[in-house]
Amino acid sequence: MKDKIFSNLIFERFSIYYRCLNKMISDNNQKEFTDSNELSYLLNIDPSLIRRDLSLIGKIGKRGMGYSINALKSGIENILGKNKIWKLALIGIGNLGRAILRYILNNTSSNYSVVKLYDNDPAKIGISIEGIDIKNFDTINKHIDFNIGLITVPADSAQAIADKLVDCNIKAIMNFAPIKLSLPNDIFYREVDLIKELDILTGMLNFNNAIQKSS
Amino acid sequence: MKDKIFSNLIFERFSIYYRCLNKMISDNNQKEFTDSNELSYLLNIDPSLIRRDLSLIGKIGKRGMGYSINALKSGIENILGKNKIWKLALIGIGNLGRAILRYILNNTSSNYSVVKLYDNDPAKIGISIEGIDIKNFDTINKHIDFNIGLITVPADSAQAIADKLVDCNIKAIMNFAPIKLSLPNDIFYREVDLIKELDILTGMLNFNNAIQKSS
Repeated sequence: MKDKIFSNLIFERFSIYYRCLNKMISDNNQKEFTDSNELSYLLNIDPSLIRRDLSLIGKIGKRGMGYSINALKSGIENILGKNKIWKLALIGIGNLGRAILRYILNNTSSNYSVVKLYDNDPAKIGISIEGIDIKNFDTINKHIDFNIGLITVPADSAQAIADKLVDCNIKAIMNFAPIKLSLPNDIFYREVDLIKELDILTGMLNFNNAIQKSS
Repeated sequence: MKDKIFSNLIFERFSIYYRCLNKMISDNNQKEFTDSNELSYLLNIDPSLIRRDLSLIGKIGKRGMGYSINALKSGIENILGKNKIWKLALIGIGNLGRAILRYILNNTSSNYSVVKLYDNDPAKIGISIEGIDIKNFDTINKHIDFNIGLITVPADSAQAIADKLVDCNIKAIMNFAPIKLSLPNDIFYREVDLIKELDILTGMLNFNNAIQKSS
C-alpha cells in the first residue's frame, strides 16, 4: 500500500516534468539544457526532490551544464510509457463519457487512444460515436484488447463494472463515478471525483470565511 | 504553502467521511453510532487519523458508544459548508463544460448550483443550456455573484481566464485545462487533469511490466 502511494506521487511528478519539458521545447527549441533549480522555480517542487526523481532516469546530468532537455524528455518517455500507444475503453456513454472521448480525441499529441465504447442501454448499443461503435458491456470477456478501463457510469453500477473489468484481467482502472471502489491490491486505480474536489474548495472557503469573521 | 496542502488533505478526508456517513444512513437508517475502527475498515484510513480529524468537530464521541452518526454528519456539514448552496460558474461551454454542467445538475443531492455559463465564441453566446444563458466571458466584472469558477477552456486560454477571475475577486478556482496555472497564494485551487491521471496509471503499468519481464 505504502509503495503504491509512493509510486503514484513519483509518476505524477514525472507527468508534470514531462509537460514542462515539452513546453520549454515548444517555447524555445534552441534551448538545450535545464537544471533542478529552473524546474523547481517553474513547478514549485523542491529541487532536491527533482534531482532524486531524475536520478532514476540514469546518468543524464552534466556537472555545470544541468540536464539535456531532450535526454530528460526521452528518459521520462521511457518511464511513463509515452513511446507506446495505450488503449482505453470507456464504459458508460452518457454526457461525461462523450466529453472524455472528445477530450482525448482532441488531444492529438497524447499517446492515448480510445478503442472501445461500452454501455448497457439497448437504445445506445450499435450507435457509432466518432467512428467507434457502442457495444454491450455484458459481452466483454477475457479476450479484450485495451489497457485501461474508464468508468463513467452512475455510482450504483460502478462496482459491478469494476469487478467485471478485473475478471477480464484489466490491471488499470480510472473511476469517474462518485463512489470509492473496492479492488484487489494489484489493480492500479485512480479516481476523479468532481463533488469531492468541490467539497475541498468549499471546505477551504468556508474555513477561511469563518476565520475572517472571528478576527 | 504547507498549511494549504495540509488543509487540502483534511478537507478531502472530511468529504470522504461525509459520503460514507450518508451511505450508512441510506443503507440502514436505524443505525445510530459508528466508531473510528468501523470508518477505518470502510475507508482504509488509519483510525488514529480519523479520531484526530473528527476531534476538530468538537465533543461528539461517547466513550464505549462511538460517534453519533447524525451528530458527525451535521458537524462535517458545518466544516465543509454543506448546509449552504455554493454557486458555480463554468467558463468554456464545449463538450467538457456541458458534461460537467449536466453532471452537477443530475447530482440533485449536492449543494452545488451552476448559476453562470461563459464562453467567448460569438456562435455560442446567447444560447441557453438547461435554462442558463451562455454569456460573453469578456463582460464579467467585480459584481459577479458566484463562489467558484470552473475553467473548461483549452490550455492556451486558461491562464488569462484565471487572471480575470482573480481580478473579479473569485477566491476558488477549479481548473480542467491541462496546464499548471500560476495564481496568488490566497486563491484556493484544484486541478483535474485527465492526461496526468492517465500518465500515472500507464507509468505504473509500464513499471510493473518492466519488473515482470526482468524477473
